[in-house]
Amino acid sequence: MSEPVPPPCFQNCVPPGDERERLVCGDCGWIHYVNPKVIVGAVVTSGGKFLLCRRAIEPRAGFWTMPAGFMEEGESAEHGAAREVWEEATARVRLDALLAVYSIPVISQVQLIYRGELTLPGFAPGLESLETRLFGWDEIPWNELAFPSVTWALQHFHAVRDQTAFAPFTAPVLFESRPGR
Amino acid sequence: MSEPVPPPCFQNCVPPGDERERLVCGDCGWIHYVNPKVIVGAVVTSGGKFLLCRRAIEPRAGFWTMPAGFMEEGESAEHGAAREVWEEATARVRLDALLAVYSIPVISQVQLIYRGELTLPGFAPGLESLETRLFGWDEIPWNELAFPSVTWALQHFHAVRDQTAFAPFTAPVLFESRPGR
Repeated sequence: MSEPVPPPCFQNCVPPGDERERLVCGDCGWIHYVNPKVIVGAVVTSGGKFLLCRRAIEPRAGFWTMPAGFMEEGESAEHGAAREVWEEATARVRLDALLAVYSIPVISQVQLIYRGELTLPGFAPGLESLETRLFGWDEIPWNELAFPSVTWALQHFHAVRDQTAFAPFTAPVLFESRPGR
Repeated sequence: MSEPVPPPCFQNCVPPGDERERLVCGDCGWIHYVNPKVIVGAVVTSGGKFLLCRRAIEPRAGFWTMPAGFMEEGESAEHGAAREVWEEATARVRLDALLAVYSIPVISQVQLIYRGELTLPGFAPGLESLETRLFGWDEIPWNELAFPSVTWALQHFHAVRDQTAFAPFTAPVLFESRPGR
C-alpha cells in the first residue's frame, strides 16, 4: 500500500504557491501529491453481540477486527463501510451513526467508523477473514484484537450504546496529532 | 491533482484476494492503489460573523469559500483544518466540533468540516486568497460561493449554532452516494 518509487526525473521541491516539498517532475512539472488514506468500517451488532472477523491477511493475520478497510474511489464513506462488512463478513448492515473519526498521523490514516446492526441473520468469512463470530461484551477477545482502533471503537460503542445523537469520538490524545511539519 | 499517467508496464487487472481492478505492474507485481482524498476545513466565526476567503486560484477563482483544502501526510484532521485556516486566512482558530462529513463520490472526496472560532482578532489573505472578510449571516454572498459544500456547511452551522454535541451532517442525498461498482 506504499507509494511507487518515482522515476529519476522527479525531485523534491516546493511548487509555486505551495508551502511544502512535493515530488515534482523536472521534465514536465507534474506534481505527485501524496495524501492520507481513508479507512471506513463499522462496529456491527446483532442481538447485542458484536460481529468480529479474524484476519486472514497481514498485517495482524489471525487477530480479530471489526470489518474495515480502504475507502474506494466513487463511493460514499457509508457505502464503503457497508461494502467492507459485506466483503469481510458476508453480512448486510444498516448504519445508524458515525461512531468515530480517528486521525492516526503516524500512518497517515483517517478512520471513519460507523455504528451498525445486521439486517439479516447470516454472516460468514469473506476472502480476507479466517472466521467471523458474534461476541457478547464480556466475551470480546481484548488481548487478540488486531489494532488499537478496534479496541477504541468497541469501547466507544459501549459508551454511547443508549444514545442516538452524539459527536463522534476521536483517537486518544497520544495518537491524535503531532505538530505540522 | 490528478494521478500520474502510469508507465506502459502497468495493466488493469484484479489482484489475488481483491475484488476490483487495479493498475498492476506486469514486471514486478506492484499494485498502484488510488483512493479518495480528504478535504479538511472549518466554518469559522468571530463575534457571530463568518470568516470567508475569496479564492485566488482555480477552480472557482474569485468566489468565496470557507478555509479548506487537502489533508496532508502526518497531520490529524483537526490540525489540517487549523492549518488551512492559517494558510488561507492567516488566522488562528479553536475548533470545537466536527460539523460535517461530506462524501462526494463523483469527485472521490471526503470533506471533514469543523466548527471553529477565531482566537485572535487578526486575519488577512494567504497565498491562495484574494480577500478575507467577516460576513454577518444576512450578508453572506450566497450567489458567489465557490462550491456546493460551502453552502451546505454554512447552513449546517446555522442549524446547530446553539448546540454543543450533535451528530455531524452529511451531504444532501443527491450528492451522498451511488451504488458501488
